[in-house]
Amino acid sequence: MEKKYVIGCDFGTLSMRAVLVDAVDGRTLAEDTYTYSGGVITDHLPDSDIILEGPDWALQNPDDYLSALVQCIPAVVRKGGIDPEQVVGIGVDFTTCTVVPMDKNGDALCKNPTFRDHPHAWVKLWKNHTAQKEADDITDYVKSNKLSVLDGNGLRASSEYFFPKVLEIFRKDREAYEAAHTYMEGGDFVVSKLCGKPVRGGVTAGAKGFHDNETMSYPDKAFFGGLEPGFENVVADKHLTGVLPVGSPAGNLEPEMARLLGLTTDTVVCVAHADAAVALPGCGVVTPNIMTFIMGTSTCHIMMSKEKIIIPGISAVFYEGVLPGYYTYETGQSAVGDIFEWFCKHYLPAGYADEAKRRSISPLTLMDEKAAALRVGQSGLVALDWMNGNRCLLQDSDLSGLIVGLTLATKPEEIYRALLESTAFGTKIIIDRFVEYGIAVNEAYACGGLAHKSPVLMQMYADILGFPIKISAYKHTSALASALFAAVAAGVYDDHKTAAANMIPSPAIEYKPNSSNAAKYSELFGLYKQLHDYFGDGGGAIMKKLKSL
Amino acid sequence: MEKKYVIGCDFGTLSMRAVLVDAVDGRTLAEDTYTYSGGVITDHLPDSDIILEGPDWALQNPDDYLSALVQCIPAVVRKGGIDPEQVVGIGVDFTTCTVVPMDKNGDALCKNPTFRDHPHAWVKLWKNHTAQKEADDITDYVKSNKLSVLDGNGLRASSEYFFPKVLEIFRKDREAYEAAHTYMEGGDFVVSKLCGKPVRGGVTAGAKGFHDNETMSYPDKAFFGGLEPGFENVVADKHLTGVLPVGSPAGNLEPEMARLLGLTTDTVVCVAHADAAVALPGCGVVTPNIMTFIMGTSTCHIMMSKEKIIIPGISAVFYEGVLPGYYTYETGQSAVGDIFEWFCKHYLPAGYADEAKRRSISPLTLMDEKAAALRVGQSGLVALDWMNGNRCLLQDSDLSGLIVGLTLATKPEEIYRALLESTAFGTKIIIDRFVEYGIAVNEAYACGGLAHKSPVLMQMYADILGFPIKISAYKHTSALASALFAAVAAGVYDDHKTAAANMIPSPAIEYKPNSSNAAKYSELFGLYKQLHDYFGDGGGAIMKKLKSL
Repeated sequence: MEKKYVIGCDFGTLSMRAVLVDAVDGRTLAEDTYTYSGGVITDHLPDSDIILEGPDWALQNPDDYLSALVQCIPAVVRKGGIDPEQVVGIGVDFTTCTVVPMDKNGDALCKNPTFRDHPHAWVKLWKNHTAQKEADDITDYVKSNKLSVLDGNGLRASSEYFFPKVLEIFRKDREAYEAAHTYMEGGDFVVSKLCGKPVRGGVTAGAKGFHDNETMSYPDKAFFGGLEPGFENVVADKHLTGVLPVGSPAGNLEPEMARLLGLTTDTVVCVAHADAAVALPGCGVVTPNIMTFIMGTSTCHIMMSKEKIIIPGISAVFYEGVLPGYYTYETGQSAVGDIFEWFCKHYLPAGYADEAKRRSISPLTLMDEKAAALRVGQSGLVALDWMNGNRCLLQDSDLSGLIVGLTLATKPEEIYRALLESTAFGTKIIIDRFVEYGIAVNEAYACGGLAHKSPVLMQMYADILGFPIKISAYKHTSALASALFAAVAAGVYDDHKTAAANMIPSPAIEYKPNSSNAAKYSELFGLYKQLHDYFGDGGGAIMKKLKSL
Repeated sequence: MEKKYVIGCDFGTLSMRAVLVDAVDGRTLAEDTYTYSGGVITDHLPDSDIILEGPDWALQNPDDYLSALVQCIPAVVRKGGIDPEQVVGIGVDFTTCTVVPMDKNGDALCKNPTFRDHPHAWVKLWKNHTAQKEADDITDYVKSNKLSVLDGNGLRASSEYFFPKVLEIFRKDREAYEAAHTYMEGGDFVVSKLCGKPVRGGVTAGAKGFHDNETMSYPDKAFFGGLEPGFENVVADKHLTGVLPVGSPAGNLEPEMARLLGLTTDTVVCVAHADAAVALPGCGVVTPNIMTFIMGTSTCHIMMSKEKIIIPGISAVFYEGVLPGYYTYETGQSAVGDIFEWFCKHYLPAGYADEAKRRSISPLTLMDEKAAALRVGQSGLVALDWMNGNRCLLQDSDLSGLIVGLTLATKPEEIYRALLESTAFGTKIIIDRFVEYGIAVNEAYACGGLAHKSPVLMQMYADILGFPIKISAYKHTSALASALFAAVAAGVYDDHKTAAANMIPSPAIEYKPNSSNAAKYSELFGLYKQLHDYFGDGGGAIMKKLKSL
């Protein structure tokens, strides 16, 4: 049988990782990463006197994306020792919603000397938050006109979304707005560069671009015109149509790019996916009603379903955000690993720091170990995991963290354990909401740094959620998934389920619920829920007031 | 003018401190302390196989009290370089309620070889908690029979009180109960030894002995009989009557004791006072409506008033608990300094510990300094200071501590500051309750370790309470006050006010409220109050449940 290889490119916030994968058995032959030399631009524009005022800026230099391709793709082919002609496909996933203003030639507008001093001509990274006013205006407009535009976005526009970012340019830098031929998601920018023609993917347009992937349409002109006079034709003027469904082949590598990458023009490129959502097939999740936790500093929960139900407090539901034919539910906890890091950074007593050093383990590992030695409920503590606000179900960034049950005997590992538990309780609140609205959650997969690093935490999740948690065997699930999408787009498989069955390894670990802990956890969760409901409702005024002081 | 000196003896939990004071100007000439060689007996009886089961025991060896007198009194006379004949009076204050079972000869029952193996024949220190059942039985009996016995005790008997301790002996060691000729407070035991005759003081009998200092009577026989058949005659059988009002002369030194102490039988002994309440005149507080905070691991709040009002949640109100002619209100916060110690012990990061070491300051001083550098409300945190339960107003030891407003940016000094503030808010809750019930609180004095060690804390109290806080100039306020009582009992002064005007130094420091902080603190206190009321009422079930897990 002829050897066929695919390359998955996972564009993260600070770096890109490429993997070369055997399209038949999913085996990874080589990996390579490229750290963006421009990083995240927060203070001033590169080679410029332009200062970026305030804490909300997060720009990037699009050259980094192209440099990443040019370094990593030849590198994995070389490291893998394969014939470049055997690379049948390339898949791309990207942070979202990262917006690139582009000119008529398909280049980033900020590369044009006229615009390199225009902050709004640069790439706005997903976490650029300067468009909060635009997001609020959209939310208010939708609400006051009783529109359905935000029904699939938890009724609220985020400053991270596509149109708040574009509207901001329209308002704050009309010259750059007019000069832009189009605006693209970062992933689409990369795919368009690879194919030498504009290509848009449905995953990101559906998730954060108000694109209805069922009717393949944007909101009408009246909506955009209502936001701001003159903005009504944004979709047509800025060439935003022609969105392709998830997993579609985007085209072949264009000749110049093929030459740069050392590949042939036979290589098929798949439309871009989102770096979080693509993790599901990367874990082997290709059927509905299995929730996947992408766990790191924060946690993203994504699940497919045959049904579309608007669930209050769940941030997003839209069509074909993971695989063709399914609705995608997406929500998140705004701080998870960040909470544990925060505690270990600031509250680790000297004796514990010494112990970690002596044993050459990280403070987190030490605290995991000490927390694991405690019995469920032993410390009489419960915490609310809102140290970075609550993204779901309450969707309120002014909420804050809480610990209750403190006594003069409370030790650091007890608080740490309560923090671990609080994030699991936060997940249970989300899952219970799905179930309450008739969407079953049958099991869960976890991937991301925390899922691999903290067995204590994952066992807690299994105990608290009451079903098994499976951990992906391969750490770089998104890159592997992009390779899988490439294989399907290149015709190696007819569909993604078949591809996953062949290419994705079985879970490495399965954490099974410990029934003897279940009863105690159920009591503890009852208390968490009571605090959640009190501070999520009237008592939340206390937290808001504290923030406002 | 003839020189007159007085000696104040302050019997604490672990040691006794004696001061030799010039009765005319209050100048301290000499101090001496004696640490009890027997300490607090918690595990097994001395020179015995008898094990004390459980964590609730706290016994003492009465020989330590006498050894303290015999060491310290001659020592201060010698150090002071005075003529022993010039010592006109001795005053004594003592922890309360510490109960000494005594035989017919005025000796402690536990010194009798027959009873030295009987735990219940030993001195039960104030914090001996083995009589919880007896305390609960008394509370229940009073409640179900609608009696007024506990009206001045917040409607609840404590296991630290006199009669729960005596009833326990009656129930658990009838032999020791029968053998005891009487039971005395530790202070009364010492005074009786000094005078060679039984003497009882009203302060402790009124505070924790159900003695009505207005009618000079105990509850009737029916009450005691109702608690337990056979117990009805406890007052008469155990010779508990003959209580003398606060400040009364108890008698002169008996010859053998005078010889042992190197003094003359002309020396007058004053009836015993309580170590906390006596601090008021020791600070110079001799008028009503000035609250005194005795601040250490916990805080005791004591105030005199012309009026007797039963205030819900305020532990005690009784007649003549500080000075003749006034009602005494007494309440407390069950953890104050303990909370700050707890935080510094367990949550001080390595870098901070290093800094404290390098600068040779205590962690508490370092944290005080860092907390002081923060602006009011800056950290957006508020805490409930219930890490050791709530003694007042909620009177519930199952309540626990809480911190709310935590974010990923919250630093240790911010939590520490919130803990400092929480104890001041806890005090404000108490003071507001007094005012609500018509008892004015015009200003406050503070004494005890914390009052002297933490200017940051004391400034917060002034800012939060909205009136000046004065700090006693002399650190050993109780010992000085006992010397003052000795001076009045010996006739150097006609009354305690005149004595205080002459003998007590002006406050060393006065912390004045900073009006620019007041508005922010008022907002913060509003949030504390909201949490206090929520968790003090329905939400408290969360804390109780956590404790019960």
